[in-house]
Amino acid sequence: MSANLLFPSDPTQRAIARDLYALVEDRPLISPHGHVDPAILADDLPFPDPARLIIVPDHYLTRMLLSQGVRPAELGVPTRNGEPVQQDGREIWRTFARHWHLFRGTPSRLWLERTFTGVFGVDIPLGPDTADEVYDALAARLAEPAFRPRALFEQFNIEVLATTESPLDDLGTHAKLAADGWGGPGGRVITTFRPDDVVDMEWPGWAERVARLGEMTGEDTSTYRGYLAALRARRAAFIAAGATSSDHGHPTARTLDLTDAEAEALFQRGLRGEASAEDAEAFRANMLFQFARMSIEDGLVLQLHPGAVRNHNTWLYATHGRDTGGDIPQATDYVHGLAPLLQAFGNDPRLRLVVYTLDETTFARELAPLAGGYPAMYLGAPWWFLDSPEMLRRFRETVTETAGFYNTAGFVDDTRAFCSIPVRHEVARRIDAGYLARLVAEERLPLAEAEETIVDLAYHIPKRIFKL
Amino acid sequence: MSANLLFPSDPTQRAIARDLYALVEDRPLISPHGHVDPAILADDLPFPDPARLIIVPDHYLTRMLLSQGVRPAELGVPTRNGEPVQQDGREIWRTFARHWHLFRGTPSRLWLERTFTGVFGVDIPLGPDTADEVYDALAARLAEPAFRPRALFEQFNIEVLATTESPLDDLGTHAKLAADGWGGPGGRVITTFRPDDVVDMEWPGWAERVARLGEMTGEDTSTYRGYLAALRARRAAFIAAGATSSDHGHPTARTLDLTDAEAEALFQRGLRGEASAEDAEAFRANMLFQFARMSIEDGLVLQLHPGAVRNHNTWLYATHGRDTGGDIPQATDYVHGLAPLLQAFGNDPRLRLVVYTLDETTFARELAPLAGGYPAMYLGAPWWFLDSPEMLRRFRETVTETAGFYNTAGFVDDTRAFCSIPVRHEVARRIDAGYLARLVAEERLPLAEAEETIVDLAYHIPKRIFKL
Amino acid sequence: MSANLLFPSDPTQRAIARDLYALVEDRPLISPHGHVDPAILADDLPFPDPARLIIVPDHYLTRMLLSQGVRPAELGVPTRNGEPVQQDGREIWRTFARHWHLFRGTPSRLWLERTFTGVFGVDIPLGPDTADEVYDALAARLAEPAFRPRALFEQFNIEVLATTESPLDDLGTHAKLAADGWGGPGGRVITTFRPDDVVDMEWPGWAERVARLGEMTGEDTSTYRGYLAALRARRAAFIAAGATSSDHGHPTARTLDLTDAEAEALFQRGLRGEASAEDAEAFRANMLFQFARMSIEDGLVLQLHPGAVRNHNTWLYATHGRDTGGDIPQATDYVHGLAPLLQAFGNDPRLRLVVYTLDETTFARELAPLAGGYPAMYLGAPWWFLDSPEMLRRFRETVTETAGFYNTAGFVDDTRAFCSIPVRHEVARRIDAGYLARLVAEERLPLAEAEETIVDLAYHIPKRIFKL
Repeated sequence: MSANLLFPSDPTQRAIARDLYALVEDRPLISPHGHVDPAILADDLPFPDPARLIIVPDHYLTRMLLSQGVRPAELGVPTRNGEPVQQDGREIWRTFARHWHLFRGTPSRLWLERTFTGVFGVDIPLGPDTADEVYDALAARLAEPAFRPRALFEQFNIEVLATTESPLDDLGTHAKLAADGWGGPGGRVITTFRPDDVVDMEWPGWAERVARLGEMTGEDTSTYRGYLAALRARRAAFIAAGATSSDHGHPTARTLDLTDAEAEALFQRGLRGEASAEDAEAFRANMLFQFARMSIEDGLVLQLHPGAVRNHNTWLYATHGRDTGGDIPQATDYVHGLAPLLQAFGNDPRLRLVVYTLDETTFARELAPLAGGYPAMYLGAPWWFLDSPEMLRRFRETVTETAGFYNTAGFVDDTRAFCSIPVRHEVARRIDAGYLARLVAEERLPLAEAEETIVDLAYHIPKRIFKL
Repeated sequence: MSANLLFPSDPTQRAIARDLYALVEDRPLISPHGHVDPAILADDLPFPDPARLIIVPDHYLTRMLLSQGVRPAELGVPTRNGEPVQQDGREIWRTFARHWHLFRGTPSRLWLERTFTGVFGVDIPLGPDTADEVYDALAARLAEPAFRPRALFEQFNIEVLATTESPLDDLGTHAKLAADGWGGPGGRVITTFRPDDVVDMEWPGWAERVARLGEMTGEDTSTYRGYLAALRARRAAFIAAGATSSDHGHPTARTLDLTDAEAEALFQRGLRGEASAEDAEAFRANMLFQFARMSIEDGLVLQLHPGAVRNHNTWLYATHGRDTGGDIPQATDYVHGLAPLLQAFGNDPRLRLVVYTLDETTFARELAPLAGGYPAMYLGAPWWFLDSPEMLRRFRETVTETAGFYNTAGFVDDTRAFCSIPVRHEVARRIDAGYLARLVAEERLPLAEAEETIVDLAYHIPKRIFKL
Repeated sequence: MSANLLFPSDPTQRAIARDLYALVEDRPLISPHGHVDPAILADDLPFPDPARLIIVPDHYLTRMLLSQGVRPAELGVPTRNGEPVQQDGREIWRTFARHWHLFRGTPSRLWLERTFTGVFGVDIPLGPDTADEVYDALAARLAEPAFRPRALFEQFNIEVLATTESPLDDLGTHAKLAADGWGGPGGRVITTFRPDDVVDMEWPGWAERVARLGEMTGEDTSTYRGYLAALRARRAAFIAAGATSSDHGHPTARTLDLTDAEAEALFQRGLRGEASAEDAEAFRANMLFQFARMSIEDGLVLQLHPGAVRNHNTWLYATHGRDTGGDIPQATDYVHGLAPLLQAFGNDPRLRLVVYTLDETTFARELAPLAGGYPAMYLGAPWWFLDSPEMLRRFRETVTETAGFYNTAGFVDDTRAFCSIPVRHEVARRIDAGYLARLVAEERLPLAEAEETIVDLAYHIPKRIFKL
């Protein structure tokens, strides 16, 4: 019934798009970057109630209701200051359903609807009057064995799923997955090395975490040299657990090649709690440079996610903590920021750098020219607020003419919401089909090449770029 | 004959757009922000000749002819340096008609044509050869009683029109309107509090105007404290005259929470004529913060129009003064600029902040995430150069996926040109119909919800957001 | 068979686009700015082999292969460090053909295909398996007299072609063209004054070139005054050789009105090799201002191409030198950068300033408002990475509503690749036809005016703006 979802309505383009999409509709999903909790798959327990599965952990949803005055605590989001939190899943669900109209035209709406229908077979349209009915139907499904995480993983046709862990994670969950035949190098569920919490001095508790890093690795992390050695050791452990990439979330794309002495001085000021904002920025910039160097040594693909002002909504942060919807994008400079790194390593075939953005103005102006000129660099898929039908389309429209298709790294769902994985890939594949259909309809690309391209985009490119 | 104006030409989308537009075509117009001179309606005199009504006061038109070498004085724009000015309306009109082709593809062309045909029933296409004929036809209409301002107001089906006045305005015109049953709280014509001329130290004559503000209010405006009290008094007077919002035109979106002592120091330097550009910027930034505080107290919706470099064309300013087409947009940072204000008041349900932009790159990157996350903030409609069919469409395409429809504040015509009000709302409603039609055609939104949404956008949302 | 290339697939729009395009399809080509080597036409020798004609000199192509790890030396790009270079044209061609899929969706693909078919009548689709076949077919054609440069010039229906030379060029090639009846004022091949190499102190060898400028002109270029006089002398020589414009490639759009004493001080620091980066930038900014002054005197149209970070890929620069694909665009500020120049001369009808950009965010925000307000300023066509179907369309969509069509300067191919000139103009004309068709289909412009407009855009406007 939604055979034409997201396809152009022009009949010529729509017919081509449908044929192209048919070539990738049933291809396995490659998910090289995301934030699913691996314990879900390791433990394979039934999911909690619909509200706790779908609403409470999804800051795309809770921030939208906040924007209309509904406090996150009313939606069950935990507080860290003792404020009372709604505990009743059904009440959370009803509050959410009363505000369902807010999501008209948003990808969240699309993702949720397709998850309800496609994953859970629940076709009742959500709304204030149907809240209980939908809730009960979803809850009934969640109780069935076929809706346990591993069963869904099979149903979703996921070939490989990368989760994301801190160097301080002992990777025990991934070890359990490996023991069950689900994880480890080349496995279905692998990890990603995400060291921000031990790199960013401005993140409270940094020095304590650096000390813990030393304990875990037996390195002396009271020195910069020991700190680097500890990071190398953890990268090796992550690789042993199946990781093929690292991931780095920085406020900017700045990179810096500091001398050891300069970096050591910053590091020591950080440990003493005396680092300025400029110190912290310089240290992060230097560490990106060092991680590129390590990537050349150990082969991890380096993913860079820059440009978020973290915790812009300070009340939200104070009440609910990090990652609850209070981060806001900012303008990001790649052309100067990445110059030190690219000038040192950008022509080195051993480096693979995948760069994302929250600032779409950089796609045509900076990122496509850089990815279309440096062997090491690839363009990451539209991310976060940009992971949406209109933006996925604009991404191709603004990037392809300069970087082509083959300097893009393939779709990445980047989600915490396990059940939304299929629809996110479906949306990306449908938009790519529509874009390619337009090229064909406007006689800019022969159909046979469009057919080859869509399969590459959906499947072969992400496998190759992320070394899966 | 123009039933399909601005609708997508794809037959599927066009049919849906037409049905959606039919739902709002006859809805009353809500005009919560604009620059119509209230004396037009208070006095209800016949309009002057077509050139003086349509060309002379419209800097969208005169700057375009200037760009091709036609001096504003040739179009009747008053000079302040004694340069002679064309006084003959017919000659002005002929000069304009000779350059009519310059406006192909512009909203000015669209607005004028629809005004000629829709308001005045003059269907003769304008051009060098028809200049006199069109002029005479318009002039004949303007002499009829049905084309007096109040009659047109009724014909236009305007429910409420907000004009914009300085705190130094005695609001006598609005008092007359109220006395005639046209104004006052809840009336058809209300005012808006626009304090830029007593806030911006860089605007010549600021200190004198601040002194006048003291005289009007009986407050001692030689001190910052008295200045704030005087502003509060004028806000109360504006509210008594029907105002539901204030409006602020600043070069940037910067906000600052200065201490009283810091603000007093800036204020005193300003009064002494010793304020630097940085001082003036800091004082403006502080005043935005103070106005947000006052809005929480008195309930005025705070509208912010940042990002214009005023009087970029210094020759134009020297010859013809302010607001004659010499202002140019600049890149604007909202994410850091608004942070102090939003962090202090952004989660307070008593504040309502409507933010506009001249920098469309901020819609997806900054404004939609901010409006989609803070309860206090709403997105203003595309403004000035951005109030155009292509941009109204891009506005929905870039904003909706992150902020939805319900964090946008509804269309605002923002015009001095009273007779253009209907067509401006028509354009916005048609573009919204076309955008929603695409969502329906691409199966992203059920038709019934699109129907509800278009009525909300055209009517209910602006009424609610602007407290009308 | 490609009658509909690049036209919208909506049948209504497509039919109108086809009719509009038919009006300009056979119009002569006006090429007011480009980088074709005039010796090609002066000598009229057969072109070299297909690889040396098409691949080796085209950094659009070589940088794309570099981005996938193919070193430029493998494609025959000369090295300056003694690294070996592939010399066999056929081998270069084969390497290129193996990577042909990288260009899917790019303008390079479109240009090459149309050049193969339209210019050379070679319809074999390029690919790894057909590399030799295509190579041989092209080589056979290149050996025919009909494919000599002057014959192609006639076949291409070029009315006038401007090349670009340094002030240090003795214009001997252009003298030969004039002697043959091909060049000189009003001729078919003219020059353009491009002084960057004697303006940019950061370009190695600047002082030596300034000395050479003195020798060429008999002026004392050890002083700023003599340097200006020498530049004026060379401009006069260029005008005598047919030039109607100058061209300026600067990292930014900054302009500055320095006093003679200030400029002299910078100039002397530059000659002594003691200029800082800020000095060099200020000197360039000042020189743009001085060139505007000279343009008012001598009538040369001033073209400004700002916003490229030159030699971003330092390895590429070290290995292969300038202009080999290692330049990257950066965000560019026009509103403040151009203010000094525009405030001094922007209302002067004797100046004609054509401004280009690599930063499309400035089209709607800065460039269209400036061009739509200052008599002197015109918008240059989308340039370099932006000279592409999607961007040509976005250019009209973002610029027209504020600047109209008549403040744009017409299409400029800006190419070194002589054989690609026809297709580049074809693409621009087709995109303009499609854009105008949409305006007509959406009832925003009568067909008759669209018909007049497309002829103006394709032919009359560039002739007038560039004084051809």
